[in-house]
Amino acid sequence: MSKAGYAPLDAEGIRHYLHAIPVARERLGQDHAAWRIREVGDGNLNLVFIVEGEGAVVVKQALPYVRLVGESWPLPLKRSFFESNALFIQEKHAPGLTPKVHHFDDRMALIVMEYLSPHIILRKGLMQRKYYPKAAATIADFMALTLFNTSMLASSAEAHKARIELFASNTALCRITEDLVFTDPYRQAALNRWTTPYLDGIKAAFERDNPLKLAAQEKKWQFLTEAQALIHGDLHTGSVMVTEEDTRVIDPEFAFVGPMAFDVGAIIANYLLSFFSHRGQAVDGRPDSYCDWLLEQTEVLWTVFESRFLELWQAGGKGEVFAQGLFEEVADAQALAAHRRTFMQRLFRDALGFAGCKMIRRILGLAHVQDMESIGNPEIRARAETLALTFARQLLLHAHGFTGIRDVAVAAQEHAHP
Amino acid sequence: MSKAGYAPLDAEGIRHYLHAIPVARERLGQDHAAWRIREVGDGNLNLVFIVEGEGAVVVKQALPYVRLVGESWPLPLKRSFFESNALFIQEKHAPGLTPKVHHFDDRMALIVMEYLSPHIILRKGLMQRKYYPKAAATIADFMALTLFNTSMLASSAEAHKARIELFASNTALCRITEDLVFTDPYRQAALNRWTTPYLDGIKAAFERDNPLKLAAQEKKWQFLTEAQALIHGDLHTGSVMVTEEDTRVIDPEFAFVGPMAFDVGAIIANYLLSFFSHRGQAVDGRPDSYCDWLLEQTEVLWTVFESRFLELWQAGGKGEVFAQGLFEEVADAQALAAHRRTFMQRLFRDALGFAGCKMIRRILGLAHVQDMESIGNPEIRARAETLALTFARQLLLHAHGFTGIRDVAVAAQEHAHP
Repeated sequence: MSKAGYAPLDAEGIRHYLHAIPVARERLGQDHAAWRIREVGDGNLNLVFIVEGEGAVVVKQALPYVRLVGESWPLPLKRSFFESNALFIQEKHAPGLTPKVHHFDDRMALIVMEYLSPHIILRKGLMQRKYYPKAAATIADFMALTLFNTSMLASSAEAHKARIELFASNTALCRITEDLVFTDPYRQAALNRWTTPYLDGIKAAFERDNPLKLAAQEKKWQFLTEAQALIHGDLHTGSVMVTEEDTRVIDPEFAFVGPMAFDVGAIIANYLLSFFSHRGQAVDGRPDSYCDWLLEQTEVLWTVFESRFLELWQAGGKGEVFAQGLFEEVADAQALAAHRRTFMQRLFRDALGFAGCKMIRRILGLAHVQDMESIGNPEIRARAETLALTFARQLLLHAHGFTGIRDVAVAAQEHAHP
Repeated sequence: MSKAGYAPLDAEGIRHYLHAIPVARERLGQDHAAWRIREVGDGNLNLVFIVEGEGAVVVKQALPYVRLVGESWPLPLKRSFFESNALFIQEKHAPGLTPKVHHFDDRMALIVMEYLSPHIILRKGLMQRKYYPKAAATIADFMALTLFNTSMLASSAEAHKARIELFASNTALCRITEDLVFTDPYRQAALNRWTTPYLDGIKAAFERDNPLKLAAQEKKWQFLTEAQALIHGDLHTGSVMVTEEDTRVIDPEFAFVGPMAFDVGAIIANYLLSFFSHRGQAVDGRPDSYCDWLLEQTEVLWTVFESRFLELWQAGGKGEVFAQGLFEEVADAQALAAHRRTFMQRLFRDALGFAGCKMIRRILGLAHVQDMESIGNPEIRARAETLALTFARQLLLHAHGFTGIRDVAVAAQEHAHP
C-alpha cells in the first residue's frame, strides 16, 4: 500500500517539509523554528497537524492503514489524491464552502490546506446544544451546487465519464461504506458493536428482518451502480466545520461518482441522530426547543437543497439530459418543470432510504457517533438509540409513505413522544 | 483521432499483414499468394475482410471516421480496443456464443477473428421469413450469462469498478447512442430521416409529445448513469449471425458498463420491428404464421433470459449485493427469491422502455433497419412503420401496464389487427 518516497511525518518532519514550500512560508512566516505544531487527528484514518506561525495552515497526511484499527487494516494512500481532487472540484462549484487547498503532494499523500478558526466540528456543537442558524442551509447549498454541477444535468457525457474514470479506483474507501453501512449491521460481523445488553434484542431482530435486509441491499445496489454525480461520500456532521456565521464541508476522501441521494441522506441521518440523542435523554418527555430546532434544521436541509437544485436546473440545465432544445415551447417548459418535481421526489425517497441505513450503521455497526456515545448511562443511551433505530427502519422500509420532509419531522417528533 | 503506426489496409495490405502472423498462417495455410480476400463491410463503421485459404478468417479494422458518413464524422480507433476487450470477456462468460478472437492489434485497430460460415446476419434471415428455432433462446442465454456475470450480483465491487474504468473512455460510441437513440428522433436534427410525407405528421407529433420526450430522457438518464453490467450496447438483429443450429453475437464495439435492460430492450425491439415490417405488408390482415412465430420468439427472448438469469443468481450469487451470508435461513431464502422476482420485473419494465426508444430511432432517426427499408412501396412501408411507432410509444409510456412478455405479444398482435 505504501510507495517510494512516502514517509509519515511527525511534528518536526512537518516543520522541515513546510519550510521548503513557498506557499506555506508565505502564510506562516520565515521563522520556521517558531512555528507551533500539534497533531490533532481525532478522526479514524489520518494524521492531521495544525501549524501556527504568523498565520496558520492545516496539514493532513494519509497513513497506509486505518488509524482507528491499526496496520492490520491497510488503506491506500491514494485516498489523498481523491480527496484533493474532490476539494478542487467542490471549490470550483461551491466556492468558499470547503477549506482552501494550498498544496497537494501525491507522493507524500499530503494536503496543506486552510486552517479554519474558530470553527468547530458541527457534531460537537450540536452535542453542546449550540445553535448554528446558517449551517443546514449552507450544507444544503453545498450539496445542490456540487451534486447538480457534477451530474449530467449540467455537463456532457464525456465530462461525466472522465469524472467517473478519475474516481473509479477509489475502491478501498467505497469498500468501507459497502461493508460497514449496508451489510455488517445486518449480520454477525466481528467489528460490530452496540449498547449491550439493551440492544441485543433489536440487533438479533434486524438480523432476521428480511424486508429490512432486502431494503438495505437495494440501497447498496444503488450505491454501487448509480453513477449520478461526484458525491462527498461521507457527509455527516463530523465532516462539517462551523462558526455561527461560516460553514465548511471537509474530508471528501470517500468521494466518487455515485447516487446524489447518498449525501443528502447522510446529513439528514446525522441531524436525526442528534435529535434522537437529545430527545432520548429527556426522560420526562417535556418539550425541548433545541430538539424542535434540530427538526426544523432537518427540514431546512431538504427544502433548501431542493429549491436550490431546482433553481440551478431551471437556470442552467445545459447538460446531457432533459436539455438539448427538446423543451422549448411554453407547454414543453411546463411539462419539464413538472417532471423536475417528480425527479426531486424520487431523490427525496432515495435519500430517506440512505438516511435509514446511515442511522442504523452508527448504532449497530463499527463506527458510532459521539452524539450517542457521549451518553454515559447505557440504559438512557440505549433508549435514545432504540428510538433512532426504529425510526431508521421506518425510513428505510416506508420511504414512500413520506410525502415530504415535513412528514419526516412530524413523524420523528411523534416517534420520540409516542 | 488517428495514431502513429496506424494505416487502413486494402486487400493486399491484409495479405502482407496476415502473412506475418503465425496464428493466421496456421489457419490460412502458407501459400499466402493464393488467399482469396474480399472486403465485405456493409456496416456503418468499419472495414471488414473475409480471407480464405485452406481455412478462413475475418479481419475487422476500424477507420478513424464513421464509414456511413465519411471523414467529416471522426470516430476514435480505440473502439477496436473496446470491442476486443468485450469479446474476451463475453467469451469467458458465454463460451462459444461469440466469434473467437485470433489476434488483436491495438496500433492497427484491427481484430483477426473466426470466420462464421455458413452463418448469415439474423436480420436478413428474418427478412426472408426464415425460421431460426434456436436463435432467440441463444441470444437470451448470451444476455443472461454476460449481464449476470459482469454485474455485482456475481462479482466484487473492485472487479466491477475495474470494468467501469476499462470501458469508461468508450465515450464516442456511447455518444452515438445518446444522440441518435434518445434525443434526435424527438427534435429536428439534420441527420433524421423518415418516410415522407406519410410520417411527417407523426414525426411532428412526437416532437410535441411531452410525456414521450420526458420518458425518452428518463431512459437516457438510465443509460448514462446505471452502471450495472458490461452491456453489448448494440444488440440488434444485425449484430447476430445464425445458422439453423448456431447463433453468435458479434460487434460489441459499443460495449460499456451500463443498464442491463438496454441489451434486452434492443433485441426485443428488433424482433418487434421485424414483426411489424411483415405485418404491415399484409394488407388483408390474414393470419400469418411467420408473424406469429416472430412474436413467440419475442416471448422466448424474455422468458429464457429471465429464467437463465434467475438460475445463475440462485446458483451463484456470490457477488457484492444480496449475498454475503445475509440470507441463510429458510425464511431468508424465500424472501430473497421473492425479491429476485421483483428485481426481474423492474428489469423487464426498463427493457420495454428501452425497446420503445430503439424502435422509434430506427424509423425517425438516422440509422434505419433493412426490415423496413426494403419495403419498396413507401405507402406500405409507412403503414408498417406507423404500427411500429405507435406500439413503441405504448412501450415507452406504459411499460408498467404490461405484466409480462405475453402481454406484450398479445398487444402487438392486436395492435397490428385492430
